[in-house]
Parts: sequence; structure tokens; C-alpha cells
Amino acid sequence: MDALPAVNEHRGGTPDLAAFMDQVRRDVPAHCILTGADQTRAYECDGLPLYRELPRLVFLPENEAQVVAVLKACRDHRVPVVPRGAGTGLSGGAMPHAEGAVVSLAKLNRILRLDPRRCTAVVGPGVRNLAISEAAAAYGLYYAPDPSSQIACSIGGNVAENAGGVHCLKYGQTVHNVLRVRVVTIDGEIVELGSEAPDAPGLNLLQAFIGSEGMLGLATEVTVRLIPRPRSARVVMASFPSVELAGEAVTRIIADGIIPAGLELMDRRAVNMVEPFVHADYDLDAEAILLCESDGTPEEVAEEIVRVEALMREVGATRLQVSASEEERLKFWAGRKNAFPAAGRISPDFYCMDGTIPRRHLGAVLGEIADMERQFGMRCSNVFHAGDGNLHPLILYDANRPGEVERAEAFGAAILELCIRMGGTITGEHGVGIEKINQMCAQFTREELDAFSAVKRAFDPHGLLNPLKVIPTLARCAEHGKMHVHRGEMPFPDLPRF
Amino acid sequence: MDALPAVNEHRGGTPDLAAFMDQVRRDVPAHCILTGADQTRAYECDGLPLYRELPRLVFLPENEAQVVAVLKACRDHRVPVVPRGAGTGLSGGAMPHAEGAVVSLAKLNRILRLDPRRCTAVVGPGVRNLAISEAAAAYGLYYAPDPSSQIACSIGGNVAENAGGVHCLKYGQTVHNVLRVRVVTIDGEIVELGSEAPDAPGLNLLQAFIGSEGMLGLATEVTVRLIPRPRSARVVMASFPSVELAGEAVTRIIADGIIPAGLELMDRRAVNMVEPFVHADYDLDAEAILLCESDGTPEEVAEEIVRVEALMREVGATRLQVSASEEERLKFWAGRKNAFPAAGRISPDFYCMDGTIPRRHLGAVLGEIADMERQFGMRCSNVFHAGDGNLHPLILYDANRPGEVERAEAFGAAILELCIRMGGTITGEHGVGIEKINQMCAQFTREELDAFSAVKRAFDPHGLLNPLKVIPTLARCAEHGKMHVHRGEMPFPDLPRF
Repeated sequence: MDALPAVNEHRGGTPDLAAFMDQVRRDVPAHCILTGADQTRAYECDGLPLYRELPRLVFLPENEAQVVAVLKACRDHRVPVVPRGAGTGLSGGAMPHAEGAVVSLAKLNRILRLDPRRCTAVVGPGVRNLAISEAAAAYGLYYAPDPSSQIACSIGGNVAENAGGVHCLKYGQTVHNVLRVRVVTIDGEIVELGSEAPDAPGLNLLQAFIGSEGMLGLATEVTVRLIPRPRSARVVMASFPSVELAGEAVTRIIADGIIPAGLELMDRRAVNMVEPFVHADYDLDAEAILLCESDGTPEEVAEEIVRVEALMREVGATRLQVSASEEERLKFWAGRKNAFPAAGRISPDFYCMDGTIPRRHLGAVLGEIADMERQFGMRCSNVFHAGDGNLHPLILYDANRPGEVERAEAFGAAILELCIRMGGTITGEHGVGIEKINQMCAQFTREELDAFSAVKRAFDPHGLLNPLKVIPTLARCAEHGKMHVHRGEMPFPDLPRF
Repeated sequence: MDALPAVNEHRGGTPDLAAFMDQVRRDVPAHCILTGADQTRAYECDGLPLYRELPRLVFLPENEAQVVAVLKACRDHRVPVVPRGAGTGLSGGAMPHAEGAVVSLAKLNRILRLDPRRCTAVVGPGVRNLAISEAAAAYGLYYAPDPSSQIACSIGGNVAENAGGVHCLKYGQTVHNVLRVRVVTIDGEIVELGSEAPDAPGLNLLQAFIGSEGMLGLATEVTVRLIPRPRSARVVMASFPSVELAGEAVTRIIADGIIPAGLELMDRRAVNMVEPFVHADYDLDAEAILLCESDGTPEEVAEEIVRVEALMREVGATRLQVSASEEERLKFWAGRKNAFPAAGRISPDFYCMDGTIPRRHLGAVLGEIADMERQFGMRCSNVFHAGDGNLHPLILYDANRPGEVERAEAFGAAILELCIRMGGTITGEHGVGIEKINQMCAQFTREELDAFSAVKRAFDPHGLLNPLKVIPTLARCAEHGKMHVHRGEMPFPDLPRF
């Protein structure tokens, strides 16, 4: 792809904040602008507090017109913009820029329309994920993607990160459940991406926007698909004598044409970490526990459970239990859903990783992670969205011990690079953000990163939207040692640095 | 979005073909290059023969390296490129450019890998849609999207158009069934978009590429998802006293949480057109016939059929038949699948339209199309992918009668603009191509077309890939009278004209 040097020669510098504020104050009331460390401190990090930065200011617009005004002013005065949802992200995607503004969309938190006949809801980006399902419950409907943070996280953040959850194996991620997004570009223009129709003419930019981590624009309205609540759901909980066999059961279930509503694996350390906390009756002697949920009509569920149990037995499950009531189903899930708080009970700090691998390598990857525990001198417990090959290793460390933060980061990076070697990727649902930017150099070729940069520039020629995240510059990749500089040329242009 | 005038000042002109050929002949053997009208005539149109043009030359590369060489030469010499699959497209997307080259990917027709354990196949773009399912059948797997042309159409063309089919209501369109595409850009660079993992880090450009109608690059390898063949399938065929009631049945089925494997509606004229041809035992007295397929385990199918029949009766179905055998199931479908050839028996020519509308407007839209029949003095028979609101009105005309071609085109345009007014879109699965470029002006705002142009330029700064299609220039929209020129400015830059 041709370099477009004109738009990349600008290298920023400190913006003229006084002129910027004069402009923005014309359209944005004072109570929607936070300045000074005491006001902006709460915004210095998101759910990955390893990375912190105080922004110059924080905007809390109350309507779309104010979003437009803020972005136009940022464009005119070359002020970097970091969009923010609920701040629950786990890859530092909402970490502020030291010379820039945070734009929080938390106040755009109204459910604008809920149409049970069309099975859609149109909501502001600040609406919480769970609030959509709560509002839809009256019609027997719900919004399927359910990240662990769903009580707190907002749909705008879900769109930015393409959030998943336990049920995304069957019901898809955010990208499969959002029909349309209304976007404000850095120029303050309104663009509607996607459509309620099955196929939208023109370029399919909705999916490029979903998961773009705030690099292309800010969502001000999101239309989601609602689906009918399943009439029943039951969980099979199975113990296996090895992680490899549990992984084999996962492969066999999928290969048999079953798409469970959830298919989650926990290793021995994770089980032993959560059981004393949740008392879910987990088998403490198992090397791995597999949770497999079926949902649908009672007949469908009964039929699927029989097939799942038979497959698990064939592979070598040593203990099998099927939830007999809704209460028991929730109890079985309680351990999996509380893995993160449980980690907090046994370790001062933990670092949640997020990589994907082909399902068949589950066993081999766990073996290598065990070797790394010895190499880095740190424990790691493992929970997986096994059905879609999405790992969440939890590295346990103590930030107060010198060198442990750096060692935890190095351990995490080693896991991600292992995922790439196994044919997987460096993020399943948490995004790249600032956390995994080095691993992007290993994940993609120069040409692929260049394609990302070109599309980024098409939306944001001055590189103001969430700068220095997601797409690494060539210099960073060269420094990280993962990319060759082709014949001494600078093959793709850097994004601006402020 | 800022205009990037530098890349749009080039306005083409006739390329220097001699120098171009010198370059390209270094890498592409003579038998892969067609020149002269006698050789290139077969490429003058695709499945929409209303639009024809003879290209300067046709390339039939035999491997990816030759595709790279052709595109680099086209880029160096500013030769427009029209990519072509099997030529079955219905919107003129593969219509040649008079000063350009057609690049047919028909020879890249090998199935490179088929992995039953991972449920994936990696295939060349020239592999026929049905050939994938035939190869996968040995493992009990198939490739779900099934456009009517699936015997002939190629997966590369399916990717370009985001092809659908009867089963896409339940199993998704091409975009939901393709995991990864290997793309050659106009600069001859190789980029892999997408991943076999559930979420790919970085920008989600796979979905933007799928359905981009040859504007962003040429696919040389496509990785598709295979799914297990359902163990059984049955069809309910129901007669309704009005199209409105059949539409109501569609809405009720979907609202009840049932996603049929297929849900197709035919109006009285379509039924009366196909029955003498296929003898499918269709009810000639019905105003509308609805075909609803259930697939899955025999138990799932039986349970779903009971629910579907009950809902149809409640709404007012006058005759209900359930296929009792696989033979009968195929007979019920035969009428729907042969609607196009049947049209050929009663009319010298027909023009197949492709729009989408919200399902609830099915009745109203058919009423308006009936009014248009009188207004344009032409007959139209209607078949629908009713479940996803995708209409295929067939306008019947005689090209040998003066003025009928133009009248059929005007009738078609009126139907598309009706779809937009009803909250739908101008294409469900056939693409925009050259056919619907004027309606794009009505479908999208200036800012939205501008976003498409910006992304197009990011991949193809000189506008060489399938020029003058899909994204209308401002001048065209102004001429078509559908877009206001904002304060006399030219708000988005034209793509080059050759």
C-alpha cells in the first residue's frame, strides 16, 4: 500500500489548550468539563491499572451535539482524544494521553427505543450491558453477549472492544449482535454504519468499527439485536484426570455438531482457588473441570445433555453432574464467574491475560504455561472459554515486591507469543489497547499493519483518536525486535507522536 | 472526514498499454492473456447482460505470483482492473472497463486444505461454491451459504458480493462463514485478513473486504467454516389468502424465537409461473405460498414443525402440507429454486431485483409494486427470502420492444427507492455493482459515501480497482437529483474517471 506521507508529517507537540478551551466552551457547559488532577484522577486508568496517565482534561458530554463540538475542537487544535466507556476494559484502551482529553460517554445512558416486534433496542453508548437485558426481560428477550463485567460495562465500550463472554460461543460476540452504530468522526460528522437489514450496501464498515478500540470515531447510538430468552438451561459439570482429556472432550463435542450455550474449562489450580470462596461443590481432585451448558426448549436441552454426557464419558470423564435446578445451575457457574475475585483472596495482585489458540492445542499450551511458571517464578491459574479456544491465564504476583510487576508483564508477553506460535491470537475479547501493542508486531506482517494504518488514517488523518494504541509504529516493532526493516526503508509511516 | 485531494487529482486517460504489456509479460505467460474482441467477448458482461463493455484485455493468472505481477503492472501503468469470479453476478459488478483489464480468478480453483477436525477448508477463489460442500460431504460437513447459482458461482465472487441464499436466515451470509481471506492489494502486497480465532486483534477488515465488490483487492485464498450436515430436514408448505397474512406468519414465527433453516414466500403470480414448469403441487388458488424449513435432529425438527404449523393456522393458513420424505422436501423447494428459469418460459426477458425491507412491511410493499405494474405497464412476479426481508421481484419484459429495457430499469429503480423509503436497503445479496449506483445516492448521506471513499482510497489511492462502481461520485448523485450539493461545495472527492 502506498505511503501517504502528507498526513503523517505532523508530529504533534503540546496543543494550545487555551484556544482549544475557548472554542469548546461555546458548546459544552462547564459542569461537563473536568480539569485539574483532583477532578481527573478517577480517569487515570481503566480496568488495567498497570498503565496510568493523568489526562489534561475530561469531557462528560450530555448529548450528541456536545460530542460533535468536542471532537471538532480537538480536530481543530490537534488535541488527542481518548474515548472512555465504563472504564472496565482490561487492556488499557481507555488509558489517557498526557497531552489529551478523555471523552467519557457515560452520560449518554438512555435506552432510546426498545422494539419487541423487531427484536431490537436503540441505546446510548453509556447504557450498561446488563441494563439492556433487564429492560428487555419484560418481553421475554435479552441481549446475548455477557462479559464478566456486564453489571458495570457499557455497550459503547463493548462495541469498542468487541466484547464476548461465556455465551458467545453460541450467540456470538458484540460484532454478531450489533446491527447499527451511529458514529461521530473526528471531524464532527455523523455517519451511520450498518443497518437493520441483513446486508448493507456499500462497504461493510460496521464490523471494522466494532473492535476498533476508539481509533475510528465515537459511538453515540447503538442498535442491538435482542433474542428470546431460552425456555430452559442446564449445565453438565465434568471432572477429567488431565487438561488434555478435557480439551479432547471440548473438541469432540464441537465436532459432533453441538454448539453449547457455554463451554468452560478450569484447571486444578483455578478450581482449588475458587472452591473455598464459592463452595460450588467442585471436584478438588480433578486435574480439570469442564462446564457445558445447553439451552433451548426442555426437549432440546434433554437431548443435548444426553449426547454431551456420552461424549464426555467416552473421553474419560471421572465424575459427571447435571444441574437439577436453576439454583444448582447458577451454583455450578458461580466458581467460573468468580475466578477473578477468588484470585484476589490468595494473591495481592493478579494479571488477567487473554489469548486464543486452536482448541486442539489446549493441553500443550497448558504444559508450556506450567514450564513458564518455573521460569518466571510465579504461579498462574487457568480459566478458559474452551469452546472458542479463548484462554484467560491469571498470573498471580505481588506488586509490592521489587521486580514482580515487570516479571508478570514478561510472563504475560511470553504467553501471548506462545499463543501466536500455536496459530492463535493475542486477544480473544479484551482488545490490544496499550497492553499488547508489542505483540501486534509479532502477530501481523508489515503489510497487514500498514493496511490497518491506512484505514485508521482514512477516518483520522491526524492520528488524534486514541493515539499510540493498537497499531504499533515501525519504530516500536524494530525496538521490540519482532519485525525486519525491509532494505533499510521505513515501509509504513508512523502515526503521530505527541 | 477531510478530503485528501492529492490522491484524487489523477483523472486517468488512456493508459500506455504497450509499456504495460512489456512489464506484465515478464511474469505472466502468453496463454494467460487474452486480447482482441474475439477472445475477450466472453467477458463483456456478467449475469446482468443489460450492461456490457469489451475490456482491453483479460488475464487468467494461474497462481498468486501472477496475480501480484498483474496488479503491480496495473498500478505502475494506471490500468483499471475489474476482478471476475464465475461471472454469475447479478449487479454488473464484473462488467469490464473499456480502458482496463479483467482479471479472472477462475484458474485458482483448487481446494488447498480441508480439515474436518477444525471444520475449515482453505480454497482458491475460483473454487465453485457447491464444490466445497461436495468435498466436505465425506466428513458429514458442508459450506452453508447457498446462492441460487451455487452450481456455477465461485467462492471468490461470493466473498466479493457477500452472497447469501435460502439458508442464510439461519446460517448467515458469506460474511458469517468465511474466517480468513488472503488478499493481493493493488500494490501487489499480500495481506491476510481475519483469523480462525474467534476475534482477530487489530481492525476487523475481513468484514469490510467481504462484500467490497472488488474495490479493495483480489482474494487469492479463502478459508471457510464448514458445519455438520443436519441429520434431518422437513418443509412446511402453507397457502395464505393474502400476502399480508403470509407476511404476518413470517413475523410471528420469528417473534416466537424460531429461526427456520429457510423461510420463503412466493406470490400468486410467481406460483402460477412456476407450477406448470416444476409440478411441485403448489396451490394455484393461494394468494401467497410460504415454505418454512426446519432442520436438526429428528426430535428438534418434529418439535419445531408442530410450533410452526400452529402459528400458521392461527394467522389463517388455508392449506398446510409437511414434506413426508426427502424427495417431497426437494419437490416443495423445486418451485422456489426454479423461479428464474420459469420466468424465462413466460417472458422473453426478465430483470431480477434485490432489495430488503423490514419484514412487517411485506404486504404494503407488494401492494405498491402492484400499483407500479400498472404505472410502468409491465408484469412483476415476486419471490422473497421472507425470513430476512429480502425481496426478489422479477420484472418481465421484452428487450425487442422499443423502450422496454429502459422501462424495466425505471421500474426496478422505483422498487429500490420504495425499499429505502420503507427503511430497507437496495441490495440483500446481489451487490450494488454498476446497476444500483444511482440508488446509493438515496441510500446514504454524503458523509457516509465519503467514509466509503476514504476507506476505498486507503486500499486503492489511484482508484484502479473496479472503478466507477458501488460508490457514486458526487457529480453522479447531483445528476441523479438525490443529493444536495452542500453550499455549492464539492463535499467529497470524486474517484478518478478513465
